[in-house]
Formats: sequence, C-alpha cells, structure tokens
Amino acid sequence: MKYCHHCASPVQLRIPDGDDKPRHICENCETVFYQNPNNVVGTLPVFEDKVLLCKRAIEPRLGKWTLPAGFMENGETSLEGAIRETAEEAGARIRVFQDSLYTLFNLPRINQVYLFFRAELLDLNFEPGLESQEVALFREQEIPWDEIAFPVVKSTLEHFFQDRQQETFPVRMFDVVHGTDRSITTTLISHSHQD
Amino acid sequence: MKYCHHCASPVQLRIPDGDDKPRHICENCETVFYQNPNNVVGTLPVFEDKVLLCKRAIEPRLGKWTLPAGFMENGETSLEGAIRETAEEAGARIRVFQDSLYTLFNLPRINQVYLFFRAELLDLNFEPGLESQEVALFREQEIPWDEIAFPVVKSTLEHFFQDRQQETFPVRMFDVVHGTDRSITTTLISHSHQD
Repeated sequence: MKYCHHCASPVQLRIPDGDDKPRHICENCETVFYQNPNNVVGTLPVFEDKVLLCKRAIEPRLGKWTLPAGFMENGETSLEGAIRETAEEAGARIRVFQDSLYTLFNLPRINQVYLFFRAELLDLNFEPGLESQEVALFREQEIPWDEIAFPVVKSTLEHFFQDRQQETFPVRMFDVVHGTDRSITTTLISHSHQD
Repeated sequence: MKYCHHCASPVQLRIPDGDDKPRHICENCETVFYQNPNNVVGTLPVFEDKVLLCKRAIEPRLGKWTLPAGFMENGETSLEGAIRETAEEAGARIRVFQDSLYTLFNLPRINQVYLFFRAELLDLNFEPGLESQEVALFREQEIPWDEIAFPVVKSTLEHFFQDRQQETFPVRMFDVVHGTDRSITTTLISHSHQD
C-alpha cells in the first residue's frame, strides 16, 4: 500500500497515537487504513450417506477436491455466504440444519477465519460452476483423502465422519499453525461438548 | 475510495470479468480492491456468580456498559484477539474455557461478525484501559439492562444467565437485522443443541 484511497497522497506505515500496531496512514488527510482478517464461509452438503465435493478449476490447488466455500461478502450473513458459495461452485440447492454451524478454523498466518456449516442437498441437480471442474458425491470410504485441497476441508470431513457415528455434531474450533517444516498442525482448541 | 493504493490512479466501481458484484478497480494497474466483513471478538469474563462489564469511554455509546471486545487483528486467532481486547479494555487476565466459543452474531448491515467467548477471571486486579471509564462485576440482578451499549452484548448476557441455570452453554448463532423503525430484532438461527 503506497497511496491514499481518498486523496492519492503517499501513505506511511507507523503506529498511530493511542494504538500499538503499525498502520498505513495518509499523512495528508490522516486516514488510517486498517487491514483485518477475512472470513471464508462454506458448507458440508450431505445426501444420504454421501458428501458433496468440488474439484477445483482454479489455483491454488487446481484439480484437488474441496468443500464449496469462498470469501464472505459485505451485506450478507456468514450462512447466506456459505449458501451462495454452494450455489456458485456446485450449482447445489441445500437445506441448512437448525444447528448448522460446525467448524471454525483460525488461520492467523494468512489472516483468515474459515466457517463451515452442515447442510442437506435438496436434490441431485448439482453441476460445476465456473470455479469447479467437477462436482460429485462421495461415501466415507470413497473420499480422495490424498487429493483434498485444504487442511481445513480434510479436518472438517474427518470430524464429520467421526461425529456421524454418535449423530452429534458439536461446534469445533481449531487453530491451524504452519510449522517450520511446512507441515500443518491442526489443533482442536474449543468444542461445545466435553469429549 | 477514489484512488489506487498501489499507483494512485483513479479507481472505478464496476463488475470485474467473471464476478457478479461491483468492485473498486484501478483502471491503470487493474488491481481489484475487495471489501469484506470484519470480525469483532470479545469475552464474557465470569467471577463466581458475577460477570465483568466495561463502561465505554469512547463513542459510540460513550458511558454505556459493554463486554470487552474489539476488531480482530491480522496475525492473531479469534480467541487470541478476544483475550487481547479483554486485557486492553478491562486490564483483566482470564482463563478461557475449553468449550469457550459461545455466541456468533451476523450483522450484515454493518458488515461485521461478532464472536464472544466465555472466560473466567484469574484475579480481581482489573482496571479500565484507555477505552473504558470503569470496569465492574455485576450479579444477574445488578446488570444495568437499560444501559447496555450494544444488542449483541445484551443478547449474550441474557443467554448466558439462561444457560447458566442448566450449566450447559451451546454455541449460539444469530442474525441481527435492523427494522425500518430502527428497532433491532435478534433472531436465533442456529445453536449446537436442540432446545
């Protein structure tokens, strides 16, 4: 960030009065430009004993399988965003469970929070959107575990199949930390039931 | 938004190729400036049968009582942000419950998502930070209900005192919608248990 959105003057990175973090500040009009994490919202669409996955048609992880998800937009709720992304990426119409919020992932290294909601497919008339090569249903034993696009998707699927055995789906919160060896540790730090 | 952060050229509001929403786009360097919802993260700090509230020293709602909360920052998790805000606004040290995520509020009109976590005060050495006039503990019957700063805070407190009777604290998700009469309707749309 080099120039002010409002007056095109140069911005400087410095700590504003009363703050303790460097911010981009316009030295002309004094506007402070904050940068904050973004939410990525998606669903885990279920039909009978199968879940819906999308094969990505875009980078990153082109050709890998994912749950439908994308950036939450201004003017919508997290759940509305998740339903919208499911329609856009999988052409799928869903019914959302009353207690649909399922996983929350903090990804502080990339300034994102992922929220996944459980949902039921209303019909089988799904089809790939522009960002998907293919959309398909998978039973647990059919999941392409080595071809899952993102650790947050793999973790959500793993917990879903575990939780399905008890038919209880506690809300689960995780921190995703990238280790120095680039392996990814997903740590369960909060859930709504005691195990 | 009038000028590009990167090259100071004028930006235009138009729908990019492959998108369906207007974005601010630099016609010179083609950067698209997305604007997305922000997360506000906070805690509900408990000590014995009392909860901690802060009297606001800043607008909006100067002089009204609130739970410690503020914008989630880049580089932190939602829970780290909530703990940081509790230290900054109330000078309070807390222990966070294992199943601490408690309420999630979607506020699509103002492009915010609120997340509150339940916590326990570790000691009584709290003191107002720069953004608070006063910090105090309240029993349920002492809560200044007519002087609560924000509907999301009032709702979180109301559900906490209800849930405390059963000693179960399901994760609750709400949409906050401003009606045309400026009254605010808070609708429970998701929780992790069936009532």
